[in-house]
Amino acid sequence: MKIVDIREVALPLQGQIANAVVNFAEHDVSLLALVTDVVRNGRPLVGLAFNSIGRFAQSGILRHRLLPRVQQAAPQSLLDDGGTRWDPARVLAIALKNEKPGGHGDRAGAAAAIELAVWDLNAKLADEPAWATLARACGRPVSLTPVDVYAAGGYYYAGGSGHSLGDELRRYRDMGYQAFKMKIGGASLTDDLRRIEEALTVAGAGSRLAVDANGRFDLASATAYAQAMAGYGLRWFEEAGDPLDYDLNRAVADLGLGPVATGENLFSCQDVRNLARFGGMRAGRDVFQMDPGLSYGIGEYLRMLEVLEQSGFSRRQCYPHGGHLINLHIVAGLGLGGCESYPGVFQPFGGYSPACRVEGSTVMPSDAPGFGLEQKPELSAPIAQLLA
Amino acid sequence: MKIVDIREVALPLQGQIANAVVNFAEHDVSLLALVTDVVRNGRPLVGLAFNSIGRFAQSGILRHRLLPRVQQAAPQSLLDDGGTRWDPARVLAIALKNEKPGGHGDRAGAAAAIELAVWDLNAKLADEPAWATLARACGRPVSLTPVDVYAAGGYYYAGGSGHSLGDELRRYRDMGYQAFKMKIGGASLTDDLRRIEEALTVAGAGSRLAVDANGRFDLASATAYAQAMAGYGLRWFEEAGDPLDYDLNRAVADLGLGPVATGENLFSCQDVRNLARFGGMRAGRDVFQMDPGLSYGIGEYLRMLEVLEQSGFSRRQCYPHGGHLINLHIVAGLGLGGCESYPGVFQPFGGYSPACRVEGSTVMPSDAPGFGLEQKPELSAPIAQLLA
Repeated sequence: MKIVDIREVALPLQGQIANAVVNFAEHDVSLLALVTDVVRNGRPLVGLAFNSIGRFAQSGILRHRLLPRVQQAAPQSLLDDGGTRWDPARVLAIALKNEKPGGHGDRAGAAAAIELAVWDLNAKLADEPAWATLARACGRPVSLTPVDVYAAGGYYYAGGSGHSLGDELRRYRDMGYQAFKMKIGGASLTDDLRRIEEALTVAGAGSRLAVDANGRFDLASATAYAQAMAGYGLRWFEEAGDPLDYDLNRAVADLGLGPVATGENLFSCQDVRNLARFGGMRAGRDVFQMDPGLSYGIGEYLRMLEVLEQSGFSRRQCYPHGGHLINLHIVAGLGLGGCESYPGVFQPFGGYSPACRVEGSTVMPSDAPGFGLEQKPELSAPIAQLLA
Repeated sequence: MKIVDIREVALPLQGQIANAVVNFAEHDVSLLALVTDVVRNGRPLVGLAFNSIGRFAQSGILRHRLLPRVQQAAPQSLLDDGGTRWDPARVLAIALKNEKPGGHGDRAGAAAAIELAVWDLNAKLADEPAWATLARACGRPVSLTPVDVYAAGGYYYAGGSGHSLGDELRRYRDMGYQAFKMKIGGASLTDDLRRIEEALTVAGAGSRLAVDANGRFDLASATAYAQAMAGYGLRWFEEAGDPLDYDLNRAVADLGLGPVATGENLFSCQDVRNLARFGGMRAGRDVFQMDPGLSYGIGEYLRMLEVLEQSGFSRRQCYPHGGHLINLHIVAGLGLGGCESYPGVFQPFGGYSPACRVEGSTVMPSDAPGFGLEQKPELSAPIAQLLA
């Protein structure tokens, strides 16, 4: 049983959207395939994954450093002791051989694509959805409950583009979503407040609307926004300042003006430990958004959960960044709080497959084996091309 | 006046050495050239730099993201207001357009290679060594004083290899070095203490010998080492634990058993702000080792210095990681504490050119324009090849 080929392609994200800090027009994502010599239904079994969304494809690090190490490893060294499935931790350790500690940025996403593809592979080997493989691997009940979901988006639209924030959120509402997240910080406070009020006409209540500043603010601006928004009772205020500025996060939380959310730009367990120690996050209240696809995959994510739970937080406070099929399975399998979805944007990776029912603000993974990426119509052509 | 071509090559590091965590046999470094249409002595003026040593070449991120942005920018947008020199901050901002906050790892090194090449270019444009350009840009006196230097090395040697730690340090001593740094943590405490004692026979005093654990230890091991080494009065204990574990660093400093050193694996000003806030570093005592070549270049390094000085530390506590010509000029130009040198290892990048005098534990940059990389014999062939 061995991996006979590893393929990777950098796929551009579709759409011309922007948040307070970046324009996504030139963003791309690495789609990675582990092709094995195991044959199912006359075809080789393939593990598929991608490095989430938002921090670019990692073709360079993958091809230059990580993949050659995996390709040069003895096939047996990638399997678990019984030799009956691939071992995600062993594959990751080999991919990261001779990498120094610290510096958790692009490398963490490159490594994640490999590790997640191993989980997809193992789930397909067991002929079950990835959430079930994950739940079993973590000693959790292998039963599925609907996953809390909100539609993320609410980007800025160029004036006269014929599109508006309200239209966008209404489209999500028509698709079954009842909770939403929108961007702030890319306009003046006055304009953003007007946008929030526009969004509230669709969301219906502040508890169904979160706002995301993408790390743009200093403490003075973050405080001004928090105070101006306090009356809306919003679901959370996300990434007010620099994602590594734990002290600023603590100061914003300490204002006591509503829940804060952060973590999507922390890519290692040690960074999360620092957030837990220094960031002022409140048990049962604030939201952690680390994204396995940007941070070495599921093994590192499990270590993050352990740090959080040892620090008095609950895994129900975790809503991973990156609204896509991989994180839906992770949320379902690990019993996290919920997940986001990008139904309208970041194609071909954003959102779920038609077989994943969105209903009453929840979503359920389908029973397709693995992460079910093959079931997502936008991904079928790229996957077919990668494997051709 | 414009940049007409940008070239990059990943050069492997020579030598089979290892520290406590990584083997450098597969390491490489990006050598980058900004070729301009300015002609000097009948040849185009070229800005040269590399992304320090130790975190791999960054060809992927450079070619996929950063360089195309610079190449597509209007030539004028890369110059300062007067149009008489390139502006390192503007070039960097263009290279990092649409990059998200956080995630300071490989990207920080890729960006540094570009930014440092701009400094080399500007120094050559002024026909002066880079330390002078830097001193002037920062409003410091443009005068050269000898730079404190120590020879870094002291790696592990395979038994029966015919090489030993003592031989290595004696070789450095014969070259003029009087202070040394060696690796620990790659063997048992007993073996490492024996190695330290072997090194002390060459160094002559603990104050001339630093030890580097490369982030290997947990708090228990770090404490055991600190206690066992306390009697030697060593110069410093470097990277006891994970470089991002500020709390562990604080705990080791709080033992009060000698100076600690860290920072070579912090790649942004925000990470350094966290170290200053949470790391327990002591003014006038502990050592900061951030490396501009791994952390977005000199502009970000100047912001780090500002954070440190605002927090009560002195720039004399700064000894940048990466013993090579670029950091020698930065230490000299900014009046930092000193620098390391890798005279025996990490070729073709490690150590200085023959024109840089090492004497009485100090070193002086030569008067070659820019960083003087062209004067380093080991680099001449790679540079000629890159520009051919």
